[in-house]
Amino acid sequence: MIIFSERINGMYRDVRRAINQKEKTVVQQLAKQQVDGGADVLDINLGPTKGDPVENFVWLAQIVAEVTDRPLSLDSAKPDVLIGAIPKVKAALPDTKLVINSSTATPDVMGKLIPLAVDNGASIIGLTMDQEGVPSDVDKRVECGATFLMMAMESGLTPDDVYLDPIILPVNVASKQPGTVMEAIRQLSIVNDPPPHFIMGLSNVSQNCLMNNLINRTYLVMAIAAGLDAAIMDAGDKELVEAAVSAEVLLEKHLYSDDYIKAWRMQKGI
Amino acid sequence: MIIFSERINGMYRDVRRAINQKEKTVVQQLAKQQVDGGADVLDINLGPTKGDPVENFVWLAQIVAEVTDRPLSLDSAKPDVLIGAIPKVKAALPDTKLVINSSTATPDVMGKLIPLAVDNGASIIGLTMDQEGVPSDVDKRVECGATFLMMAMESGLTPDDVYLDPIILPVNVASKQPGTVMEAIRQLSIVNDPPPHFIMGLSNVSQNCLMNNLINRTYLVMAIAAGLDAAIMDAGDKELVEAAVSAEVLLEKHLYSDDYIKAWRMQKGI
Repeated sequence: MIIFSERINGMYRDVRRAINQKEKTVVQQLAKQQVDGGADVLDINLGPTKGDPVENFVWLAQIVAEVTDRPLSLDSAKPDVLIGAIPKVKAALPDTKLVINSSTATPDVMGKLIPLAVDNGASIIGLTMDQEGVPSDVDKRVECGATFLMMAMESGLTPDDVYLDPIILPVNVASKQPGTVMEAIRQLSIVNDPPPHFIMGLSNVSQNCLMNNLINRTYLVMAIAAGLDAAIMDAGDKELVEAAVSAEVLLEKHLYSDDYIKAWRMQKGI
Repeated sequence: MIIFSERINGMYRDVRRAINQKEKTVVQQLAKQQVDGGADVLDINLGPTKGDPVENFVWLAQIVAEVTDRPLSLDSAKPDVLIGAIPKVKAALPDTKLVINSSTATPDVMGKLIPLAVDNGASIIGLTMDQEGVPSDVDKRVECGATFLMMAMESGLTPDDVYLDPIILPVNVASKQPGTVMEAIRQLSIVNDPPPHFIMGLSNVSQNCLMNNLINRTYLVMAIAAGLDAAIMDAGDKELVEAAVSAEVLLEKHLYSDDYIKAWRMQKGI
């Protein structure tokens, strides 16, 4: 399970204030807490912050890299921001592995972002959507995912550098979607051998839901059984992380031992 | 989700003592607690108790039926005990639906227990094993399950009266089995339309495991996503029950509402 920390995101008020005031303590504490909880990759998202987004990304990446050498995932829905930020972050942090989060499967967007990944030795997250928006069904998700994966591989990326994100929507407004997304993962898992990674922005499933932690935890376990092997999630949520590790033990992806949570932490060096 | 309470079992010391001393208070309190937690069926198992097992079953069934009108599942690995007890319990409690727990798919065992179910208007649990023991693979489980289902249907039972139990083994000694059992459920789900029920004795998966509640909860969610719709489990474990209900909401088997746990309880009248 590759855990992308979701917490360094300008949508959270504390992170937004920190970015706006260029005050690094809060962000660095969060980064350390997320790594200690089990984060493998730090996703960084500016949210609605002031100033130049490229400069903000460079600042944010640098202060996070001061406290951890984990890979960084630059998270923006604006391709131009990613095109501006990725080379500058790479220049500032040449030893840090980067992830581009995210591209759609729209030809002109992936046509720019996949080469950007290749040029910067980065991984890339491909959303299973195109210019028509988020599909409501399985088939269109599979089509977009397969298209993205093929173009990424033709461009020289390995499946290990590709994360497909089948886009989970909130269960309270789109109750069929949790099942649809799992089926898309199952089908996309057999499109290529070895398969790419499968990732989701987990907390979307419970957005504005009363029992959000319970829903996140339950859905993560089900999605892991369907083939999910990465998630953008709160690595500080101990119960969530323990559920994910338990799911992987039950699927024989980690060795069972009586205290397998401790063993998993030791293996990660946390 | 059809919850079979696992708690009225002579393997537990308090229940064993209650059966041996014919002291009904403890058992009746447990039955009420399990129903209040969400049990749909009360599984009753004598465990290693003294006295005549048929008479013990009749006594146990009667005192449980004094406090709940939920169906009762008579749980014994000895076909002769079930053959003796089922008609007597049915005579004592003509309005109570019974479940025979369990038969194997061995011809001489199911050849006696399936007609017993038919004659007593009972449901029956069929273990996916035969005279050769518990299969280690998916194929043999599917073969046993399909054989049992076909014989049950040819004898006049409906799929709704058949529960297939693919036999989960402890993850600490048989780490492949959790995945094997889920795959068997997936394959058996398409053997007949409508499918039978799928059940398991959930706590087996975590027997002698340190983090048994976490393992049970995680595996139950995964197995529900694979098609499990019944479990013999501790209905008094609130977190376990809430995980099961959440899984069913995410699979669109219950309607989402902000407090869907409360809605689920109200629907059950608890």
